[in-house]
Amino acid sequence: MLTFYDSKGLPNPDRVRIALEEKRVMDQVIVKQVDLWKGEHRTEAFKALNPSVTIPLIVLDDGTAISETTAITEYIDHTYPGISLTGRTPKERAVIHMMQRRGEQQIVDAIGAYFHHATPGFGPEIELNQNKAWGEAHLAKTLEGMRYFNDVLEQQPFIAGDGFSMADITVFTGLEFSETYPKVMVPVECTALLAWRARIGARQSCQGLTR
Amino acid sequence: MLTFYDSKGLPNPDRVRIALEEKRVMDQVIVKQVDLWKGEHRTEAFKALNPSVTIPLIVLDDGTAISETTAITEYIDHTYPGISLTGRTPKERAVIHMMQRRGEQQIVDAIGAYFHHATPGFGPEIELNQNKAWGEAHLAKTLEGMRYFNDVLEQQPFIAGDGFSMADITVFTGLEFSETYPKVMVPVECTALLAWRARIGARQSCQGLTR
Repeated sequence: MLTFYDSKGLPNPDRVRIALEEKRVMDQVIVKQVDLWKGEHRTEAFKALNPSVTIPLIVLDDGTAISETTAITEYIDHTYPGISLTGRTPKERAVIHMMQRRGEQQIVDAIGAYFHHATPGFGPEIELNQNKAWGEAHLAKTLEGMRYFNDVLEQQPFIAGDGFSMADITVFTGLEFSETYPKVMVPVECTALLAWRARIGARQSCQGLTR
Repeated sequence: MLTFYDSKGLPNPDRVRIALEEKRVMDQVIVKQVDLWKGEHRTEAFKALNPSVTIPLIVLDDGTAISETTAITEYIDHTYPGISLTGRTPKERAVIHMMQRRGEQQIVDAIGAYFHHATPGFGPEIELNQNKAWGEAHLAKTLEGMRYFNDVLEQQPFIAGDGFSMADITVFTGLEFSETYPKVMVPVECTALLAWRARIGARQSCQGLTR
């Protein structure tokens, strides 16, 4: 069975959880919770599994450990049947990877930089190298990202076009984190983004998230 | 025909160039050079094509514009026959995506952060938001990344295992940029990394790079 090292409530592990739920295979997965707030990812045992020292991580039956959320999503999408999360044609794959990378850079990573550098983040024992100016610049970048995705969603129903994909998962988990932890809210004028978020949040795959 | 917006000598456009050369399809591509040092990517015409305001960019026959290097590589790999750059099985795809993401974060993006923030970078008219402390922290991160990949290459012939892949392209272009522009050299004790780099640099696909 696949082992999934999760940390509930954080955007990147939530991306994996939603992907597994979209494939309806959560019952085929062993889930281990890792408390990042307590630094449980910084143990030597965990570093041996994942030198990037990040969550999420999956470990396959043969012991292969896969970190980096997009890589994990590629594994899940190509292993289990059902909905396609990464696209079926070269063009679909390209557009989905592009939009999901924009979602990482402009929402998930941007709000993460704000959270880790301009707020207490995981606390003084974990956040050892804060750079307040860097964090604050990423608050503006996050809000710009929200406006960009609002513009996108004024033109099309999903982040990468006409169908649901991993790009929707990425942006959705970034917004959830933003509003829950650093309390950066989606601007009320971003009505297309807010309507899309309500639609995504109503999917069965998003019901198991902790807020 | 595919149009490729390139900027020779920079790691992310070089990643696309090498991918096209590995597929032996450079003669099927229209190449347009964009001078980032002169800010040619910041024109309104270019922003309309790519709101991320980055190079590389490809434009397909139907006008679809794809930015973000991994997305472009996915398109190239799934469109043209020949060598596989992104893997054929779910596990291969996962390992390659994981290692190439580590290559981005620990080499390409890390040395980019150092270059843009702790050196003059593209010059004062382009580098409007420098953060020297951020840049300097990424010099240490780059060197740590070089040591990490040296350890990897002591165990296996290529970055993602037994075969050449996009992960090799990413790390290779990052090292080329590092030594050419900010002049951060691979430490001499990283003998496995240096030997691997000589092997990759000897490939036909790497002969068209400008240094």
